[in-house]
Amino acid sequence: MSDVVFTVEASTVNSTRVDVCAGGHAFSIDEPARMGGTDAGPNPVEYLLGALAGCLNVTGHFVAKEMGFTIESMDIRLEGNLDPLVFMGKKLGVRAGFKEIHVWIDMKCDAGEETLAQWAQAVETRCPVSDNLRNSTPLKIAFTH
Amino acid sequence: MSDVVFTVEASTVNSTRVDVCAGGHAFSIDEPARMGGTDAGPNPVEYLLGALAGCLNVTGHFVAKEMGFTIESMDIRLEGNLDPLVFMGKKLGVRAGFKEIHVWIDMKCDAGEETLAQWAQAVETRCPVSDNLRNSTPLKIAFTH
Repeated sequence: MSDVVFTVEASTVNSTRVDVCAGGHAFSIDEPARMGGTDAGPNPVEYLLGALAGCLNVTGHFVAKEMGFTIESMDIRLEGNLDPLVFMGKKLGVRAGFKEIHVWIDMKCDAGEETLAQWAQAVETRCPVSDNLRNSTPLKIAFTH
Repeated sequence: MSDVVFTVEASTVNSTRVDVCAGGHAFSIDEPARMGGTDAGPNPVEYLLGALAGCLNVTGHFVAKEMGFTIESMDIRLEGNLDPLVFMGKKLGVRAGFKEIHVWIDMKCDAGEETLAQWAQAVETRCPVSDNLRNSTPLKIAFTH
């Protein structure tokens, strides 16, 4: 089996909003009014956290099934902190994005402690979005105008 | 000014779907039927690409305004490739997530070549999602059950 390619297309609606097409689905990304936006949807870093939650859920269920136990539910809270002065061009020497991301997962399932510890390790290793955040991912950005 | 904290909450709907709350907004993440999902929304890695598009748009407009030119539109296409066998637990020694992400930005704007080159460099440096992907981001995951 070779690599699977995922493609997404986005178009500017205004200075803070893009509308995105992904497969048969569409969604809007924007900033809230207090950040100068039109609040048509969650902002980019909220989608980033959401993507991680979605990936932990699907990977978690996949690995649990493989290990022979059932997850009844996962409630996931995610939090990231960043320094907005970097985005605003008013600070150097600090990273622009989340300095760290905290994830709290509250699960209902029928597995014991030892099984869950093995499960958690496998999930963190095999979750694609976790990998892309935790480890450096090459971005190749090309501009035409 | 101190760090800004962004928080998102997600709950399992089924083994592939979570519903996410971010501020006053909600969105669904799922997998398509061919990947065993219920197709209630884009999948996690599509949201990851979308988050990058949204962040490049807002950062791009912010930096352009600062530099004194106007962006009329940005059409952004993003593509990432990953090996699904890692997620499936059938392959080791390869990363789980996107091996690289290609972004093509087609712009309409009133800036010249030299200005655009400076702009592109500033955008790539100051875009939070670009930073979180390009550079290692610590994830702290805690489980309760």
